[in-house]
Amino acid sequence: MKADVINPFLTSVANVLSTMAMLEVSPGKPSIKEGNKSKGDVSGIIGMTTDTINGSMAITFPADVVFSIVNKMLGETVTEINDTVTDLVGELTNMIVGGAKGLLEENGYDIGMATPVVVTGKDHEVIHKGQGRNILMPFSSESGTFYVEVCFDG
Amino acid sequence: MKADVINPFLTSVANVLSTMAMLEVSPGKPSIKEGNKSKGDVSGIIGMTTDTINGSMAITFPADVVFSIVNKMLGETVTEINDTVTDLVGELTNMIVGGAKGLLEENGYDIGMATPVVVTGKDHEVIHKGQGRNILMPFSSESGTFYVEVCFDG
Repeated sequence: MKADVINPFLTSVANVLSTMAMLEVSPGKPSIKEGNKSKGDVSGIIGMTTDTINGSMAITFPADVVFSIVNKMLGETVTEINDTVTDLVGELTNMIVGGAKGLLEENGYDIGMATPVVVTGKDHEVIHKGQGRNILMPFSSESGTFYVEVCFDG
Repeated sequence: MKADVINPFLTSVANVLSTMAMLEVSPGKPSIKEGNKSKGDVSGIIGMTTDTINGSMAITFPADVVFSIVNKMLGETVTEINDTVTDLVGELTNMIVGGAKGLLEENGYDIGMATPVVVTGKDHEVIHKGQGRNILMPFSSESGTFYVEVCFDG
């Protein structure tokens, strides 16, 4: 998987968090995910299809990080992973892939987006089963660190 | 969402488990999922796209149920959710949606399939954020009860 597929996700995550949550994020170095690391308490997952390759993207937040982002975006104080949190994670997932889709189109990839699924549960793990490598992207911010993972076949 | 979209999933789940695991399953009555019920220990999730509607499907197993299915399919005894289990759940997810895709095509729906994502974690919950209703389908078997959920926009 090439930089022209990964970079649109890096850019889109930064754009969406900056615009929607006034949160500046610093992307860490993308790496190939080994093992099932990056446990989170809430994850947004979305499937992607193209004419030639298919894939999946996930964004995974520890609870305290997503509570801080909810507070920045909505002004609400939340202390448990409720519908407000999962709705917001679903929306962020949609917006990030939507933003990446626009950038990927400029690189010649026409992406079909499925609908988001949000998973909750203490320390759950997300494992992409596409045949390609699973790229792990850490993002640090004043709200804390969260993770984006992208996997495409081929 | 109509029966001509749901029934292919009911049929495909029964076909795949019967063929791959020699496991006869009895579908319970599909219902509209209320709240975030159907907690599982391992779930396979896949996104779907069409020209007109998009969606997501998840299959969620309690640990003891998936351990029994692994034993039937592979002859292996597993006691923890390891790569063998998650690989098998990813494969089952792919096969179920692949089977449903064939049946849906007969009903005029041309489905694009994303790649599967498997989530592990004790008592995690899966929440579909498509705009349509979330259809919950319980399946009972001698290995125990598991759940399939399908949600399409519109």
